[in-house]
Amino acid sequence: MLYMTTNGVPQTMKAAVMHHIRDIRIEEVPVPVIAPDEVLVKVMAVGICGSDLHYYSHGRIGKYVVEKPMILGHECSGDIAAVGSEVSGLQVGDRVAVEPGVTCGQCEACKEGRYNLCPDVQFLATPPVDGAFVQYIKIRADFVFPIPDSLSYEAAALVEPFSVGIHAAARTSLQPGSSIAIMGMGPVGLTAVAAAKAFGASTIIVSDMEPLRLEAARRMGATHTINVKEQDPLEAVQQATNGKGVDVAWETAGNPKALQAALGSLRRGGKMAIVGLPPQNDIPLNVPFIADNEVDIYGIFRYANTYPKAIRFLDAGLADVQALVTDQYSLEQTGEAMERALNYKSECLKVVVYPNGLLAAAQIPYAKTPVTVE
Amino acid sequence: MLYMTTNGVPQTMKAAVMHHIRDIRIEEVPVPVIAPDEVLVKVMAVGICGSDLHYYSHGRIGKYVVEKPMILGHECSGDIAAVGSEVSGLQVGDRVAVEPGVTCGQCEACKEGRYNLCPDVQFLATPPVDGAFVQYIKIRADFVFPIPDSLSYEAAALVEPFSVGIHAAARTSLQPGSSIAIMGMGPVGLTAVAAAKAFGASTIIVSDMEPLRLEAARRMGATHTINVKEQDPLEAVQQATNGKGVDVAWETAGNPKALQAALGSLRRGGKMAIVGLPPQNDIPLNVPFIADNEVDIYGIFRYANTYPKAIRFLDAGLADVQALVTDQYSLEQTGEAMERALNYKSECLKVVVYPNGLLAAAQIPYAKTPVTVE
Amino acid sequence: MLYMTTNGVPQTMKAAVMHHIRDIRIEEVPVPVIAPDEVLVKVMAVGICGSDLHYYSHGRIGKYVVEKPMILGHECSGDIAAVGSEVSGLQVGDRVAVEPGVTCGQCEACKEGRYNLCPDVQFLATPPVDGAFVQYIKIRADFVFPIPDSLSYEAAALVEPFSVGIHAAARTSLQPGSSIAIMGMGPVGLTAVAAAKAFGASTIIVSDMEPLRLEAARRMGATHTINVKEQDPLEAVQQATNGKGVDVAWETAGNPKALQAALGSLRRGGKMAIVGLPPQNDIPLNVPFIADNEVDIYGIFRYANTYPKAIRFLDAGLADVQALVTDQYSLEQTGEAMERALNYKSECLKVVVYPNGLLAAAQIPYAKTPVTVE
Amino acid sequence: MLYMTTNGVPQTMKAAVMHHIRDIRIEEVPVPVIAPDEVLVKVMAVGICGSDLHYYSHGRIGKYVVEKPMILGHECSGDIAAVGSEVSGLQVGDRVAVEPGVTCGQCEACKEGRYNLCPDVQFLATPPVDGAFVQYIKIRADFVFPIPDSLSYEAAALVEPFSVGIHAAARTSLQPGSSIAIMGMGPVGLTAVAAAKAFGASTIIVSDMEPLRLEAARRMGATHTINVKEQDPLEAVQQATNGKGVDVAWETAGNPKALQAALGSLRRGGKMAIVGLPPQNDIPLNVPFIADNEVDIYGIFRYANTYPKAIRFLDAGLADVQALVTDQYSLEQTGEAMERALNYKSECLKVVVYPNGLLAAAQIPYAKTPVTVE
Repeated sequence: MLYMTTNGVPQTMKAAVMHHIRDIRIEEVPVPVIAPDEVLVKVMAVGICGSDLHYYSHGRIGKYVVEKPMILGHECSGDIAAVGSEVSGLQVGDRVAVEPGVTCGQCEACKEGRYNLCPDVQFLATPPVDGAFVQYIKIRADFVFPIPDSLSYEAAALVEPFSVGIHAAARTSLQPGSSIAIMGMGPVGLTAVAAAKAFGASTIIVSDMEPLRLEAARRMGATHTINVKEQDPLEAVQQATNGKGVDVAWETAGNPKALQAALGSLRRGGKMAIVGLPPQNDIPLNVPFIADNEVDIYGIFRYANTYPKAIRFLDAGLADVQALVTDQYSLEQTGEAMERALNYKSECLKVVVYPNGLLAAAQIPYAKTPVTVE
Repeated sequence: MLYMTTNGVPQTMKAAVMHHIRDIRIEEVPVPVIAPDEVLVKVMAVGICGSDLHYYSHGRIGKYVVEKPMILGHECSGDIAAVGSEVSGLQVGDRVAVEPGVTCGQCEACKEGRYNLCPDVQFLATPPVDGAFVQYIKIRADFVFPIPDSLSYEAAALVEPFSVGIHAAARTSLQPGSSIAIMGMGPVGLTAVAAAKAFGASTIIVSDMEPLRLEAARRMGATHTINVKEQDPLEAVQQATNGKGVDVAWETAGNPKALQAALGSLRRGGKMAIVGLPPQNDIPLNVPFIADNEVDIYGIFRYANTYPKAIRFLDAGLADVQALVTDQYSLEQTGEAMERALNYKSECLKVVVYPNGLLAAAQIPYAKTPVTVE
Repeated sequence: MLYMTTNGVPQTMKAAVMHHIRDIRIEEVPVPVIAPDEVLVKVMAVGICGSDLHYYSHGRIGKYVVEKPMILGHECSGDIAAVGSEVSGLQVGDRVAVEPGVTCGQCEACKEGRYNLCPDVQFLATPPVDGAFVQYIKIRADFVFPIPDSLSYEAAALVEPFSVGIHAAARTSLQPGSSIAIMGMGPVGLTAVAAAKAFGASTIIVSDMEPLRLEAARRMGATHTINVKEQDPLEAVQQATNGKGVDVAWETAGNPKALQAALGSLRRGGKMAIVGLPPQNDIPLNVPFIADNEVDIYGIFRYANTYPKAIRFLDAGLADVQALVTDQYSLEQTGEAMERALNYKSECLKVVVYPNGLLAAAQIPYAKTPVTVE
Repeated sequence: MLYMTTNGVPQTMKAAVMHHIRDIRIEEVPVPVIAPDEVLVKVMAVGICGSDLHYYSHGRIGKYVVEKPMILGHECSGDIAAVGSEVSGLQVGDRVAVEPGVTCGQCEACKEGRYNLCPDVQFLATPPVDGAFVQYIKIRADFVFPIPDSLSYEAAALVEPFSVGIHAAARTSLQPGSSIAIMGMGPVGLTAVAAAKAFGASTIIVSDMEPLRLEAARRMGATHTINVKEQDPLEAVQQATNGKGVDVAWETAGNPKALQAALGSLRRGGKMAIVGLPPQNDIPLNVPFIADNEVDIYGIFRYANTYPKAIRFLDAGLADVQALVTDQYSLEQTGEAMERALNYKSECLKVVVYPNGLLAAAQIPYAKTPVTVE
């Protein structure tokens, strides 16, 4: 039961709380109280990300450990439900995409425009900060971005992974007409294909071992697909580029072999982005190749200044990230959704949770789970 | 005996020809005939480089194999002795530094300003192209650069290794006031220190295991030295930067441990240049560190567009590369010079050969071999 | 009558030679003899450019004066008819776009990748160099670019003006999702719209006073058109950008008012390219506006390194420059074609001459002059 | 009389308040109360800037109008006297330079690293914000920068104008070894010379009409001086650069003729910064010159991310901005100091006010007013 405040926002809400590994429970918790520079967002759609799955199944990622009951989820969108007293330019009812990392705005990294390197960032669903599998979240007003009618809530939620590809494109100076190889077609890889297409890459070669993912990559804009179970990726890239190699390569899967293939696929003077995090620290890389060919390598950590651009891309039809949604669940089914995403990687692309009901769900042709309208 | 042409250039000259591994012989060979777009340079000073030593002791570097008698040496300077009919702006008698790689000017790399990546480069002393341990060389006129009186022939010859550091500084956006770690104080590392200083780096931390080299690094501008036999380089860098790490790091020695230390010494958002070529291909690198910290890594292959700038640096007193010369030999002593450079690495920094006599030798305080004026 | 050499290339050919202002005569001249590094191109299509018209009607542009009979035309494409002995990678019969400025490859500008600033450039149809209104031209092999079957000769000829926009886009860092205002919809402005679209600009605002040109701009990708006879361009830009101003603005017409409007239309931190050459030297610009808003202004002189990219854009369907052709003439009609282009600016966009017959003419829906197939 | 709080900070303080044009009165005002994210700075030195003089003599600069009694002064340094509860990394007693513009950290400009374009900046001594001619100021903690012992309070105060030159150097990609012309040797021009030297410019040509300023420019690092009363600046630049023109030019005086000379002094491909604000809007500029030579022009508005770098430059001895101080006054003499700076431009370079007594004054050889130690 929800206790409403006078302006229609309840005092309590449902949340999907992770208590232990693979143990998510639906609980009633207080709706957050916003500060003067914050807004309250009624969460309409949340994409499940690989990091959510990792916390869910391992209880930690590197130094970040889930030490007490915690709410996961950080790819989200919704409606503004309340606006802090110092906030201007946003209204109750605005449909918004939420950028999930709130940075300090005052450190050297923030002031230089690389706020993704802010040491004091508060990031949704990174312990100890709670996330978005919940009906309402509060967030500083400068991290929500109104979306046009043309964007569904799902597309707005997927601006988050899409941002990673946009950031990689900027870091590697991806130009219209460029050739690119993208290794690994998980959700980040697939949205990265959409980013490469939006930046005008004319040859987009992708690799994975799951036919479902290679097929989805085609939908996102890939011009060549490599199934690494069947084909040597280096040979395939050489063939697709007439022996020249690609201008740009991104590794998105955290797979050492994929990283080595990305590097080896570059032309002289090419640029590589390391997007995926491998499980181990030391990966053998061909250093003479890097030096002889004057390769540039760029580490990628999240993104900065991507949301306005991403929304323009989606609005202009330059990318269709929503087409990655394959599964749709209500908040009560969050545990089920996580299990599905964890165990059916050859069937799922992006699994979406709707904390305020499936009524918000867009009709997406590739969604395999029929939407049960409540 | 020299047969002179009417304009004072002889028809034959002495050359130090490598016949087999560690077998250099002085021979009389024809003076080259220049093309309309070339100049003839009377070679006054030639520095011995690590690659010369490698061909001398191994007969090959990677795919480049010494297959017939060949002349080594590529760090050189001299006087213009003849000028081709189509050359303008250069006069017989001009003192010049010689950039040793002649590029095509017509391929994509050349046209984009990265002529060091030209696939058709003709590079002195890279098989099958002969080098500069000889009295006269010919070279296309756009690859010689007049030097002011303030530059000695030695300094002009050392513009070549100095260029590598200048190129690394440009690639890694080294800024005045930056902190930098340079790992490996061979001749390239030492001239790289001079380049870092010329670019205004205010903290220059260097590592090596030879006290002679660390002391020379101080002369070039290093503010902190690390003897890796005695100190952990990562700890030393953290100490010198108050735990922040350096803005920029260069590895110049081709040593895997030094490369790993260079990487680990970076601050978040730092930039690394790979200058040295390790003997093996696969070097384990900490990939999550690269991604988490958004590190940039830049391969360095030779240099481009550095000679005018290098000459201005030296003329302005921003660098003193000449102070690296420790040993001076005549052309007849080229074999001896090579043996010295090969076997006394703890005593020698830069060994210089004077193909037209030691009269050209500058008085250099650190030169250990007394100059015998002929 | 053509005298053929053994390999099918004649010894003489027809040329449209300008003798005086507005006096072009068809003459029989020798087919050029190529040097070892050149190719002979059978010219299939030549676009008429504003500079051709200016030489035709004034006999000079600034310091460049037509002092003897001369051949105009520099936007051209064709088939390779002969290949010099040192040329590799090109075959007789290859369909090619011709980049009309041959640069030295050896000066500082060339070596730094800004070969458009080469002081020794030889540019087709810039006195005293003859141009392309002729059946065969010779050119250094690195300035011809094979085109895929998807490109018509007209599109290949128009790579030349299209290159100006591509160069402006690179200089002003035009990004996907950017907003841009392009002032002046002459042929350079119209191909600049195509370039802005290929670079992913999502808001493209254009101005002119001719409805025909504004309509063509829509075809090229403009999202908003301003007829400056009816609307204040600054007001229109503010309206189209919700009062924010555009990220990027280009002036392409050499019109002082258009330049001032381009500048004033920028947002804080915006970037402007000056593409058009005004007839007078001193144009009043709002300097406090430039300083207060940290505007960047970039002069544009021709282009560099654009042909491969332009061909990829056209092949990928990112731009359709061929749709600008409105008038088609044979070589014999060159004078007529020039008069048409000069006097019917409200009816013509791009006038094309076919030196080897109209058989090469593509079927272009907007071409107003019916093609008479010979 | 000062009422002290328990930690030694008084409750009231002296302030130099401007009531009308050229009417500054010393008054007793409350010491500001700091917010949790602010520090209180005991102001030790304040440089007088041209904008202070303009408000003092005209009551306005453009849209900024002094509408009520107001405190001027924004180039300042001092000791931290109190630290807000949320501030870390700063201690009472720290000697600091103060960056006088507090930005929001949340707008698009701030997030992209161009916080100088923040529309919500609060800038000291820009109406209605009070400035630093006062004993204590409060400011957000991220805008104070601890200085090493090597920096005097005067040098720390002058980091402010010095920052403008550093920002211009970054915007125009000033490289070591570059040639630069700097037009106008007011205080901004003179500190700009120091910045150009710190960035390694090897040819620094300056112009002014006051011998005192040209002589000071030599002290700051100028290699060539032009007295525009005696010499044509364009001719002088051509002579100093062997007819080539300079790589970079900055106009710092807001003088239209100086701006035209800066532009005309550039080589092909050169870069110009517009630092000075001319009194009128429309300045005639040679637009064909900009286009033909592919000149870049960059507007400069204040600076961003310069303080840490500036402090490193000064600490490393790369610049000596303190040598610009010619006159030293106590807070009580602020009106006198302003009159001196306003009326004796041929005698004064930088006039400094010491709000907490002249005891803080460094012994500066060029200071003409003898320091009366209280």
